[in-house]
Parts: sequence; structure tokens; C-alpha cells
Amino acid sequence: MTTQITKAFGADSSDKPMHALEITRRSLLAHDVEMDILYCGICHSDLHAVKNDWGNTDYPLVPGHEIIGKITSVGEHVTKFKIGDIAAIGCIVDSCNSCEYCEDDLEQFCDEGVTYSFGSPDKVSGGNTFGGFSESYVCNEQYVLKMPSFDNLAAAAPLLCAGITVYSPLKHWQVSGKKIGVLGMGGLGHVAIKIAKAMGAEVVVFTRSESKLEDAKRLGADEVVLSTDQAQMESYARKLHFILDTVSAKHDINAYLNLLKHDGSVVVVGLPPEPIEVNAFSIVNGRRSVSGSNIGSIAETQEMLEFCAQHNIAAEVELINIHQVNEAFERLEAGDVRYRFVVDMASLKS
Amino acid sequence: MTTQITKAFGADSSDKPMHALEITRRSLLAHDVEMDILYCGICHSDLHAVKNDWGNTDYPLVPGHEIIGKITSVGEHVTKFKIGDIAAIGCIVDSCNSCEYCEDDLEQFCDEGVTYSFGSPDKVSGGNTFGGFSESYVCNEQYVLKMPSFDNLAAAAPLLCAGITVYSPLKHWQVSGKKIGVLGMGGLGHVAIKIAKAMGAEVVVFTRSESKLEDAKRLGADEVVLSTDQAQMESYARKLHFILDTVSAKHDINAYLNLLKHDGSVVVVGLPPEPIEVNAFSIVNGRRSVSGSNIGSIAETQEMLEFCAQHNIAAEVELINIHQVNEAFERLEAGDVRYRFVVDMASLKS
Repeated sequence: MTTQITKAFGADSSDKPMHALEITRRSLLAHDVEMDILYCGICHSDLHAVKNDWGNTDYPLVPGHEIIGKITSVGEHVTKFKIGDIAAIGCIVDSCNSCEYCEDDLEQFCDEGVTYSFGSPDKVSGGNTFGGFSESYVCNEQYVLKMPSFDNLAAAAPLLCAGITVYSPLKHWQVSGKKIGVLGMGGLGHVAIKIAKAMGAEVVVFTRSESKLEDAKRLGADEVVLSTDQAQMESYARKLHFILDTVSAKHDINAYLNLLKHDGSVVVVGLPPEPIEVNAFSIVNGRRSVSGSNIGSIAETQEMLEFCAQHNIAAEVELINIHQVNEAFERLEAGDVRYRFVVDMASLKS
Repeated sequence: MTTQITKAFGADSSDKPMHALEITRRSLLAHDVEMDILYCGICHSDLHAVKNDWGNTDYPLVPGHEIIGKITSVGEHVTKFKIGDIAAIGCIVDSCNSCEYCEDDLEQFCDEGVTYSFGSPDKVSGGNTFGGFSESYVCNEQYVLKMPSFDNLAAAAPLLCAGITVYSPLKHWQVSGKKIGVLGMGGLGHVAIKIAKAMGAEVVVFTRSESKLEDAKRLGADEVVLSTDQAQMESYARKLHFILDTVSAKHDINAYLNLLKHDGSVVVVGLPPEPIEVNAFSIVNGRRSVSGSNIGSIAETQEMLEFCAQHNIAAEVELINIHQVNEAFERLEAGDVRYRFVVDMASLKS
């Protein structure tokens, strides 16, 4: 397999800053497209991976899985894209294509495990995949999304992970017409408010940051609860049909289970490294559930992009250059971003 | 309110044996029936309450909530029962009758909290309710079940709690035609095998007791897995639609979550005092759920009794006399019962 050297930015270990480096990508295969990367969002999973929080990181690691670019080459059998198209790559760049999950457009749960856009064993090229903190990406067109028109293309990058991560459960649990909660107002939560409102839900936002109360309303929340205020919390007991839990830091999920009506679910989309401690009484009372949801399929991601473009939904972003990413990771860890960093990847070339 | 003195058997503290004592019950009100208690099952919840495992026990405590008796008196407005009827009382003896849960035949989740048949504040008589370890019970007919005909009436007593506790989730999660798991083969689990089979499920039983493998098959299990055998466990990865978790001792629920197909649920009906530790990865992968279920409504309990009578389902019981209950609680705690103790309450009078 012929390969090419590609400029990138990544980590050699969990305890040193990320820096410029070179990676190898495969040359174009018949079903591949190559894109020049324009923008790449920064997600909490990038931070977890760089810091090896889940204990499974191989270095060197090039993070980034909210990737928007312009198609620069297309393989001979490519039908979905032409040179010059604005396109995107999210979390998934390969799957087995033959298990029941892949056949049912649920390839995020592929029996063999999907290939993630960074840090996954690459079944085509060997080695591990490298993410979007790089000048270009080569990927089978099946896993590449068509980008509808957005006013601010950079602000659409976070939809590729944050957007689909919240869209998929909001759709699956059918929030339309229901009173629901969104827990956490970070990268995922702030997009969830917008999408849930556009789907027709009545949205109650729970945040422990007094400074975000106003913003929650601005983003569309019907009601906002300061989660540190016990009386406010208790006033919502048994009031909500569904709560989307976007918080990856350790927190007490039982306090939220108790806000559910019967048969309600708290759906976890953050990935706290510590176990979630569930009191049996919190779930047997009301036949409640703690459920999980993980991104979405390629087909559902495409659907989400169309939905967001149609409803004029994108993330609220702070655009940075690649040399600011170490500082950005520190600020992300401290919760100091409103609400998502996006890297202007042109800065990698300069 | 006029009252009557009733013989009973109960506990004065968590650390002393239960003994004979006298309690006060109200005299019959217009909608009440009184029954002579014939049989009372022993459930793990009785043990938890007597030992104050949940930290909320008031003493003196008279346990027992799987109660079968013969109607001896009926209040002037009673329509459902006549003297001489065989009837039963389960977990619930009162509820608010006006909240959305009560109105939807989900009174087990009543907004004001149901009155349990023992150890609950009694809104009618004052004080706390006293359970079935007694010679008689007075209860509003609304919460009293009609007993269909069973070959062995004593063996039907455990249906009043163990039976409805497993019937309700097996019905709610629609196990008919699905391959499901039953975790634990104690008082709840062994009845769950029979009910799930009668509902048309394919049943895989998980037990850590080699000595129960044969019995699981005898009770109707299609397959039996020794849960301490890692290889056997792994061979069921992603194979089951649903798992009923009847184990109240601490155990790793993640090992079972990983056996679920996508959108599957592990439904907890045991009540371990420690939090259940759920790894986020175990639920986000496959959009799985940890759910709970708590007994069932009076209407559903009546339905369950008819279902069990029709399918010739009852518990496998060891019939004891009231003076053996302290020893029986010790044996229950040690898991040394196949599969449910039932007290022959005639022994209280002798």
C-alpha cells in the first residue's frame, strides 16, 4: 500500500504537551476520498484519550474527530463526492459491514467494534488511525458525511460528535412534546438544548454554574435549575419524562433519577471513568432506567446534519489555532469554554 | 376507632430473635375484611427489615407480606368477598387512590407512597402496619386478592411478593418469544423461570451454585450458565434481549450488561443495600439500560395469580412452623433454602 506523509499535531505521552509531528496516511484507494481539513472540534473524549484516562491509549496519538474539510481527491469508484465538496468525518471511519448492527444502520455498535477516527487499530492501513488534528484525512466515502450549508462552517464541526451524541438519544427516546431535562451545559449540553427544543420538547436545564443560568435561557431552555439548590431540585421530583446526562465528571445520578416520572430514563452520554453508583431504590421506584447512548450511525449523523442545518443549529464555539490546543485542553478540563473549541486547521500549515 | 388484640410473632430489635407478641389491629370498618391467616411466605425483604439493613425499621416489627387466609368477617359495604373465601394480601394495603399512578393502576408508585403490609405508617389506624406473622389481618377489600384454586395453597403464598415482583417486569419488557436471562435462582429467580417459560420466553439461567444447575433445568430453564465460569459467560456476549436480576447480594452487573443485545435491559428486582456500580461503557455500548421494577399493582397481582393458577405455577416451598422462623431467617441469609420458606400460621395458635 502506498502511503503519504501528513503534517499533524498530537501527543507522545499522557504527561507532555502535544506538538507538531508527522504521520503516515494511506494513498487513495478506489472508494476513498481525501479531504483538506478546514476545522476540527475539540471534544472531552480527545482530552480523555490524550491523558489516557481510560487506560487504553497508544502513543503517538493524534486526536480530533469533529472534522470538516474540502474534498481534494476522489478514488475511481467514488460516487458520493466530487473534488471541491465540503464534507465531514465524525467518530467512525470503518466497521465490519456484515453484522446485524451494521446491517441495521447501528454500526456504532458493530460486533467487531468500529474503527474510530483516531486511536483505533486501522484494518485497512495497519497501525492506528490518526485524527483530525492534521492537514488531511483519507477515508472510505461510506463514512464521510455530506455537509449541508451552514452560516458558520466552523461552528458546525462539533455537530460531528457532540451533535450526534445528543441527537441520537433525543430522537430514540422520543422527546417531542415531553418535559425533559438536560444535565450539564458544556459542549454536549448546550447543543442538546437547541436540538431538543427544535424537536418540540419542553427543556429544563440543570447546571451547577450560576453563571450559565442566563445563557441556558438564551439557548432556548424553558426552565433552568441550579443543581446545587436542594429545594429547586426537589421541586422537580417525578416531573420529567427523560433526562439527558451530558456530564463526564463524577456526580450523583440518583438525585436525577428521583426527578423522573415512572418509566423515565436518565440517559448517560458522558463517559465518566469512575463507575456510576445507582441506588436500587432510585430505579425500582417508578420502574426507572439508567441507560446509555453512544454517538449514532453514519446515516443518523447525516440526518442530524440536515436537521441542524434546517433549524439553523450549530455549536457556540471559540475558534483557536493549533498552537493553542494545549492551553485549550487545560481550559476544557477546567470547564472554561463556552461552549466548544474548534481549531482552525489552516494554522497547522503556517 | 375500636381495636382488637391479635397474636403475632416479631422483632423488638435488629439483634435479638423474633418472639411471640401481641399487636393491636383495628376492628372492621365498612369496606374492610378480616382474614384468619393460613400461610405466610418469608421474603428477603422481611430479613432486610428485621435486621434494619435499609436503616428505616421501627420496632416492634411484625414481618410477613405473602399472606393467604380465609375470610372470617366482612364489613357492611364489602362486595368482593364473603365469609369463608380464600383470599390473599401481598405487599400493598393502602394508597392515596387519587394520584396519576393510582389512577393508572400503578399504585405501587403512588405519589404519597403506598402503605406496605408491614412496617409502614398506617393512615387508617395510626401507628405502623403489622405483617402476616400473625393470626389475622384486617384490610380494605380493595387491597385484598381473590385466590384462584391451587393444588398446594401454601406453595402459592410466595406468589404474593416473589411472583408479582418477577411477573410484572417479565410482562412489561415483553419477554414472549425472546431469549432472556434470569440471574439468581432463589425465591424470586426460581419462580421467574417458571413464569417466563409460561410466557413463551427462551430462558437462560445464571447461577453461581453448581448444585442448582440440574434444578434449573427441572424448573424449565432452556440453558444454564455457571456464572463463575468466565468462558461460559463470554459465550453469551450480546446474545440476550433482557436479563432479570433477582440477586440482592452485591455482584458485578457489568458482566451481565455485556451479555445484552442492543437496547436490552438488565432489570433489577433485588434490593442490594450497596449502590450498583455501572460502568458507563457497559451501557453506552449497545444503548443498554439498567432498570428497576418494584412488585406490581393490585390489579396486576390479581392477573398474575390467575396466570399462575392457569399454568399450574407455584413456588417450591419448605413449610415450617412459626417457632422455626429465626432459624429460617439464618438459613435464608446463608442461601440455604429451596426455594422459599412458608410458615404454617396454624402453629401460632398452638
